[in-house]
Formats: sequence, structure tokens, C-alpha cells
Amino acid sequence: MQISVLFSGGKDSSLSAILLEPFFEVELVTCGFSLLPIGEVAAETAKKLGFPHRIIKPDTSILEKAYDMILQDGFPKNAINFIHKSVIEYLAADNNVKVIADGIRRDDRVPVLGQPDIRSIEDRFGVHYICPLKGFGRAAVNELVKEHLFIEEGMSEEILKADYETELRELIRQRHGPGKIKEIFPLHVQSHVIERRKAGQNKIT
Amino acid sequence: MQISVLFSGGKDSSLSAILLEPFFEVELVTCGFSLLPIGEVAAETAKKLGFPHRIIKPDTSILEKAYDMILQDGFPKNAINFIHKSVIEYLAADNNVKVIADGIRRDDRVPVLGQPDIRSIEDRFGVHYICPLKGFGRAAVNELVKEHLFIEEGMSEEILKADYETELRELIRQRHGPGKIKEIFPLHVQSHVIERRKAGQNKIT
Repeated sequence: MQISVLFSGGKDSSLSAILLEPFFEVELVTCGFSLLPIGEVAAETAKKLGFPHRIIKPDTSILEKAYDMILQDGFPKNAINFIHKSVIEYLAADNNVKVIADGIRRDDRVPVLGQPDIRSIEDRFGVHYICPLKGFGRAAVNELVKEHLFIEEGMSEEILKADYETELRELIRQRHGPGKIKEIFPLHVQSHVIERRKAGQNKIT
Repeated sequence: MQISVLFSGGKDSSLSAILLEPFFEVELVTCGFSLLPIGEVAAETAKKLGFPHRIIKPDTSILEKAYDMILQDGFPKNAINFIHKSVIEYLAADNNVKVIADGIRRDDRVPVLGQPDIRSIEDRFGVHYICPLKGFGRAAVNELVKEHLFIEEGMSEEILKADYETELRELIRQRHGPGKIKEIFPLHVQSHVIERRKAGQNKIT
């Protein structure tokens, strides 16, 4: 059974792919709106992890609508959730996609799909939507990451990560300058995967 | 890393163990209060799955308190949740137990631990509590089960399953007769695992 794992190059989506690998044919999928080469950055990481990877480019109207939302709200939550849901719907509409996996953890708040949205997407598109880390807390994820991955961590403005926030930040930077980004986005730690630990590929010992 | 998977002999706990197997040293753990030989039934299933298994026997005061709750409520939800939480705390208090896994799915309502209970248990006992199927819907679980397991399904009164409900039902039957069981417990479909499909052990193709 093939599974399409939403992939940002960060530790959560990488670990999700690793946990699914023994049970599915994993492909990694990164969404890019062509503002920054984030798809290409993710492709390099995917290669290091040893998974096939492709970039999807949904219509930029999604990014524009998210831009309108974030400027109106003054905070990123609704805009990020909107992109997230739109990208999953875009992927689910692909007839070759039957199972979609998402790297959100138990404690994640943004982006996250609510139960009614999940059921609606599964029913409308005939797909399964799976979150392999949904039942894992942060500490458990960190232990598994330590076993399986080499990562670098840094503040969100320093790490080029292939997530929705990166291009939304770039769009705001282009139109309003860097000051506006600091106003809207809280600084938070991002992770970027450098390499897979070979020893951890089959079994943690 | 060793992981202790709460095991009823049903499809959800069996599939949880299978999903964790490539990443952890899995042991299956079944709770029994000695009213029925459910631990032994689970042990046979565990053997067929190929995992080490042990039976824990927490104090029967837990079952007695659940009995009081269910008679007062007239429905099983709170009593089952109480046993579930008590058993996890009992297991977490074992110094050799570092990671506990629970087979609940995305759509399960009973038994389920709330977020504050999960955090409290992880903090007080220094364990990780993991639900590998928490991000999987019923249909996705069924597809994986079909690949990995042979199961039998039947109504809850016909299948001897090593879950909390079985002994609680038995206690009520002993003290009030079978009519009381039908009054309190809604009938629902239970699964019991017969065998593991050898072909599915490593990779779904």
C-alpha cells in the first residue's frame, strides 16, 4: 500500500516516514508555492533519508488567501491551518493517492485538522488520513528522533524549512519588510534533518 | 528501548504491537483480576503473534470500585475508564517499565485517557505513554489488520476477550445474573485475533 507523507524536512515528518516504512511504500511529498526553493531543500533531505520525493505546487491563490487571513488576524494560526487543509485536499484529489500521512504530534496545536475536517476529507476523496505521531508526546518523539536521525535545531528565522510558514513569511517580507514578520510570527525552534542514522533503520537496540 | 503494550488479544492491541515491533523491544501485558482466565487466553494469542507476554494482577479493589461505579451510573463508560487509568498507573509504577503503549484508535471513546491524565502519569512515573493507532481511523486500521492478522469477530457476549469489560461483566453476572449485564452493557462487535499472517510481518506489498 502506497502512502504519501507530507514532508517538510523537519524531524516530525521524517520520523513519521521512518515509522511507516516497514508497513507501506512511502513517498514524501512537499508543497511549494515557488516563492522560495523549499521543495528542492526538502528533496535533498528526502534523498539523505532514502525515500522517493516529489514536490506539489497547488495554486498560489491558497497562499494569497492565507496572506489575507494572517494580515487581518495579526497571528498565524488560522492562515497556517487554512494552507494545511487546502494542501491535504489538493493531495487527496490526486487519484493515485490513497493514504496521506501527516507528522503532527499529540501536543501540536498548529497546523492541525479537526475531526470533522478529517472525516470530510476521507469521505469526499476516498482516502485514509493517518497521523502516525498523533499518539506520541514530545519526549517520546525526541527519543525516537535521537535514535534515528541527526538534526540541527535553530530559531524559525534561521532554518530554511519546507513548511507552510516559510513561504508565508517570505510573502510578508516581500510586501511589508522583515519588521512585519516579527510582529506576526512568534519565534520558535525549528528542526532540520541532516542525516539518517544507519544503525537505527531496522530496530532500536 | 523496551515497550509494554497493553494487550487484550483483540485486533487493535495486536496491530499496535506489530507497528511498534521494528522500533522497540515489545512485550505484551494483559491485566487480569482472576475472575476469568482471560490472561491465559491472551497469552495464547500473544504466542501466536510471536511476542513475549506477561499477566499483571492489580488489586481487585480496582474492579470492586468499578463495580460500584457502574451500578450507580447504569452505564459502563466511567467504570471502564477508571479501570483503564488504574491499570496504566499500576504498570507505570513498575520500575522496569519505561514506555507504555495503548491500542486506542482515533475514534475510540471508551476507554480513553484525557490529556491531563496522560501528562500526569508521564510526569509522576517518568514513563512515556504512546498510542500508535491514535492517528488512525477505523478504515485504515481495518486495512492494516487485513494485511497482518486473521481475526474472528462476534458480539461482545460471545467472544472471550482479555479486556476490562469481560471481568466486569462476569462480576455483575455472578452477583446479579445475566439480565443485569444486558441492562448495563450495550452489545457491540468484539474482535479476537486467531493468527498472524506471515507474509505481512515485514512489509505490506
